[in-house]
Amino acid sequence: MRKQYDIELSELNTNLIEMAAYVERAVADSLQALKDRDKELAVEVSRNDRSVNRMERKIEDMCLMLLLRQQPVAGDLRFISAALKIITDLERIGDHAQDICEISLSMDDKPLAVTPDTIDKMYEESSTMIKMAIDAFITKDEDLARQCIAHDNIVDSLFVDTRNTIVEALQAKQGDAEELIDLLQIAKYLERVGDHAQNIGEWVIFSITGHHRDYLGVETFGV
Amino acid sequence: MRKQYDIELSELNTNLIEMAAYVERAVADSLQALKDRDKELAVEVSRNDRSVNRMERKIEDMCLMLLLRQQPVAGDLRFISAALKIITDLERIGDHAQDICEISLSMDDKPLAVTPDTIDKMYEESSTMIKMAIDAFITKDEDLARQCIAHDNIVDSLFVDTRNTIVEALQAKQGDAEELIDLLQIAKYLERVGDHAQNIGEWVIFSITGHHRDYLGVETFGV
Repeated sequence: MRKQYDIELSELNTNLIEMAAYVERAVADSLQALKDRDKELAVEVSRNDRSVNRMERKIEDMCLMLLLRQQPVAGDLRFISAALKIITDLERIGDHAQDICEISLSMDDKPLAVTPDTIDKMYEESSTMIKMAIDAFITKDEDLARQCIAHDNIVDSLFVDTRNTIVEALQAKQGDAEELIDLLQIAKYLERVGDHAQNIGEWVIFSITGHHRDYLGVETFGV
Repeated sequence: MRKQYDIELSELNTNLIEMAAYVERAVADSLQALKDRDKELAVEVSRNDRSVNRMERKIEDMCLMLLLRQQPVAGDLRFISAALKIITDLERIGDHAQDICEISLSMDDKPLAVTPDTIDKMYEESSTMIKMAIDAFITKDEDLARQCIAHDNIVDSLFVDTRNTIVEALQAKQGDAEELIDLLQIAKYLERVGDHAQNIGEWVIFSITGHHRDYLGVETFGV
């Protein structure tokens, strides 16, 4: 019984790593499509969001089946509950890649007049956060999860910088207002990607310690 | 056993209705705080988001306990799985009310120069959608769930109108660029509220029929 359970847990891990790599790639591609004005790539990323949703449902099924059949307690119950939450955040990250592509597709064909380099940095930081969070989950590394959470301040402050650059350009009546607003929206989605990676980091800490930020030390599921 | 189960299911319903009413109120208050430049109310709504998170965790615990103890099949399993998803969407709606309040608090104290009336309409429509979705879930009313989903087009098209109004104002160099951008962001959050209400509508259909949009007719959990 335990052996079968371990096999299923390890399958769950593999599927989670795959899903995380897939959405991380989707975010990278969405930024590439934006900068290269590559409509084909943008359409492909948008279309691939269905695969993300299928991955989410598959992992969800695995988790619920593990819960129903194995009735795990304490640590394992927390691990599976955390996995259920983590896939929701991963799925939202995939949604945001799709959102970025939709904005990109709605924009004019011409090359972008300006791309604040803070947007590239936001992408790099948020992508690093996703990797850290998933690594931390699989290796049960609380320190790494805390590093991931701490990184979110960098993404937030890069968003503020981007927003200020764009507001200044608008106030100085520089550039195309519509394009600037689209870029601001894209920066906002990247900020949300960072938020979701931070959420994952928090679920990792919950799965290791039983404590969640919102609970102020009260443990979930009484385990 | 069955009697206890029915009591717990009915408690789950009550808690879901309360949570939905609470987040719907939070969205209403966030808009009120914005229009009245009422900082106290904005701070209160932001602070109350902790209660939403607690409600989510409580319902989540109830669902997991029902799953673990009662091992429900088919319809009941779908109902509980849908409840688990619905609370995530409700919690995000609560987050967006908080997001709106944070923007509101970051704005100058002076009265707003302009509030596009499409923003009020977006609030009304998205609020109606939340009510419809939760009613549909409790009464297992598939038609009502479909009406809720169809309403999302109205919210989306109101967002496009709002965005166009704001881009035109920016292009005509009318008004305060920073304020206009803040209003656009608030409109975006209301659009997301509509999206989450639509998601809830889709989970209701899944809980009644076993079919989910992303699944193209393949049923989840094999039930």
